[in-house]
Amino acid sequence: MEKRIYNFSAGPAILPEEVLKEAQENLMALPGVGMSILEISHRSKTFDDIINQTKADIKKLLNISDDYAILFLQGGASLQFSMVPMNIMPPKNRADYINTGAWSKKAIKEAKRVGDVNVAASSEETVFNRIPKQEELKLDSDAAYVHFTSNNTIYGTQWQNEPEAGSLPLVCDASSDILCRKVDVSKYGIIYAGAQKNMGPSGVTMVIFRKDLLERSSDALPTMLNYNTHVEKDSMFNTPNTFGIYIIGLVAKWIVNMGGLDKMYEQNKQKAKLLYNFIDSSSGYYKGHAEKDSRSFMNVTFNLSTEELEKKLIAEALAAGFSGLKGHRSVGGLRASIYNAFPTKGVEDLVSFMKDFQQKNG
Amino acid sequence: MEKRIYNFSAGPAILPEEVLKEAQENLMALPGVGMSILEISHRSKTFDDIINQTKADIKKLLNISDDYAILFLQGGASLQFSMVPMNIMPPKNRADYINTGAWSKKAIKEAKRVGDVNVAASSEETVFNRIPKQEELKLDSDAAYVHFTSNNTIYGTQWQNEPEAGSLPLVCDASSDILCRKVDVSKYGIIYAGAQKNMGPSGVTMVIFRKDLLERSSDALPTMLNYNTHVEKDSMFNTPNTFGIYIIGLVAKWIVNMGGLDKMYEQNKQKAKLLYNFIDSSSGYYKGHAEKDSRSFMNVTFNLSTEELEKKLIAEALAAGFSGLKGHRSVGGLRASIYNAFPTKGVEDLVSFMKDFQQKNG
Repeated sequence: MEKRIYNFSAGPAILPEEVLKEAQENLMALPGVGMSILEISHRSKTFDDIINQTKADIKKLLNISDDYAILFLQGGASLQFSMVPMNIMPPKNRADYINTGAWSKKAIKEAKRVGDVNVAASSEETVFNRIPKQEELKLDSDAAYVHFTSNNTIYGTQWQNEPEAGSLPLVCDASSDILCRKVDVSKYGIIYAGAQKNMGPSGVTMVIFRKDLLERSSDALPTMLNYNTHVEKDSMFNTPNTFGIYIIGLVAKWIVNMGGLDKMYEQNKQKAKLLYNFIDSSSGYYKGHAEKDSRSFMNVTFNLSTEELEKKLIAEALAAGFSGLKGHRSVGGLRASIYNAFPTKGVEDLVSFMKDFQQKNG
Repeated sequence: MEKRIYNFSAGPAILPEEVLKEAQENLMALPGVGMSILEISHRSKTFDDIINQTKADIKKLLNISDDYAILFLQGGASLQFSMVPMNIMPPKNRADYINTGAWSKKAIKEAKRVGDVNVAASSEETVFNRIPKQEELKLDSDAAYVHFTSNNTIYGTQWQNEPEAGSLPLVCDASSDILCRKVDVSKYGIIYAGAQKNMGPSGVTMVIFRKDLLERSSDALPTMLNYNTHVEKDSMFNTPNTFGIYIIGLVAKWIVNMGGLDKMYEQNKQKAKLLYNFIDSSSGYYKGHAEKDSRSFMNVTFNLSTEELEKKLIAEALAAGFSGLKGHRSVGGLRASIYNAFPTKGVEDLVSFMKDFQQKNG
């Protein structure tokens, strides 16, 4: 077998080896079916079982009530940036958005095409190195909803708990931390997430949608952009990304088998702690970008004292089998994305590598 | 290896075994990369090479000039039904649509949300069993474009040549016959196609877009629905369906290696002829649905004298390893979808089976 390296990519990102192995084993033909998952009809009994089991596992993992539909759509979070306001901003046509980075800004840009956006808080002044505190939020009590980005891949910040929005529906772009821990779904109107970081390959977007919000959508919306279409047809109005949903199903099963989201969270916290503790104990050789109480345990962002040293580390790391450590082009520095599927051993090895690098280049 | 059966599904549909084998072999890690195609960044050099080679092969196969962009989007043809009129119906806000079946009707429905639709011809009166003739088309010389569906999966009809639209841009939903033969792309404004019949897995839509039409799109459109976004960012504004594009690349290479689209077309015609000739020589035991000069060589639709016999044949065929022969729920009867990847041997075996069935149940 081809040797696998440590993949710190921010997304598409690493998947569990068990998942890849099962997908590989059955890629020519699903057991007892005689056709590949890439070839079967989305209206077949086989695929029905796959999508239903996937939804059942997600529902169980996140303890989702029957008030919510679980959808698998296309177009990524980027299309949700438009679908959310087009559907649920009316009739008020105003909404609160919390600006914690590049992805929040893209969501805001699309919402402004639909109605008024109140930026309830922003950490842009400090290069998005922190999550706004509850008391900073200037919420509009007449808003249609409150939108936030639960984890910010580029800056390495993450909401430790969701903001309090009172009676307003919370809408969350959870693309980069979905399924990393339990969340109280009952506090949310909509949670949406591109699959390609914590759940599967790119090309499928999971949307957890509270069904009482369906009544806000106008019949005049394009059929494919109306959540009613997808809830009524159970994600099968048109052909969904069948392979993507199949992989999400395998990932969900992998989390169930390991003991669920509490177990997942513990492991995630432990991995992040390893890396942050090392950074904090490096006597300032490595400097974390995010404020301590805003740190993400999905994306760890940090700098060295010079760009030159950063480049050197990235190059040497790549040669040693650590891929994808370069920070996002908009902020520079380094970023280690350590999503659900990233092994603890890989974080330990990175820490040794970084320790070594510091000794040689200190 | 798990035994594979004959897959006559209308889509998602059969893929070349060579393609599945290569994808399977490399699913844990691409050669020399150390990560799965499911895990690599869409901004990596590896994926850049994959998408560029895929575009180059498609460009070569269809002889596409530099006046066109080749895009890989999400949302299926169903989202194109809206994107096309939202982008290129203005400023005239009227367009011609030719109604040859259920998919044309869906396209018309979405176009009507944007502007005026002139149904230039329809074969609905005869259950869409034929393609309208050129002299029947009542084109509006002031239309923004002329839309047609090149192949109609449900009814088993196919345009033998595209309609003549004079100076108006032709827009074609080619989801079910893209890459089955050469077409003169220079006659078209837009060709769009969901991948899941002739090109790859579901979840990716190829759009061949004549760039002079870009100026028609309003800046007020949602970013993800504006073709300018995707042309400017070369299908990488957001994360595309990387795995789907990879498989399309393998399929394109498979066609190149077999000798290109003329070879493909020859093989497709020969397969269809085998089945149609048998149907025509069955003394009316099997009756083709489509008129002879409108017959599809992708989807062969036919009936027996009673529904009971049809059910019997479908059940016995399934037991004998022929899957997916049931006609679409909206028209009944039988349908054999014999896309590019469907082997000639499978058609021969189906003909023997049908011959046998006729003898036993004649």
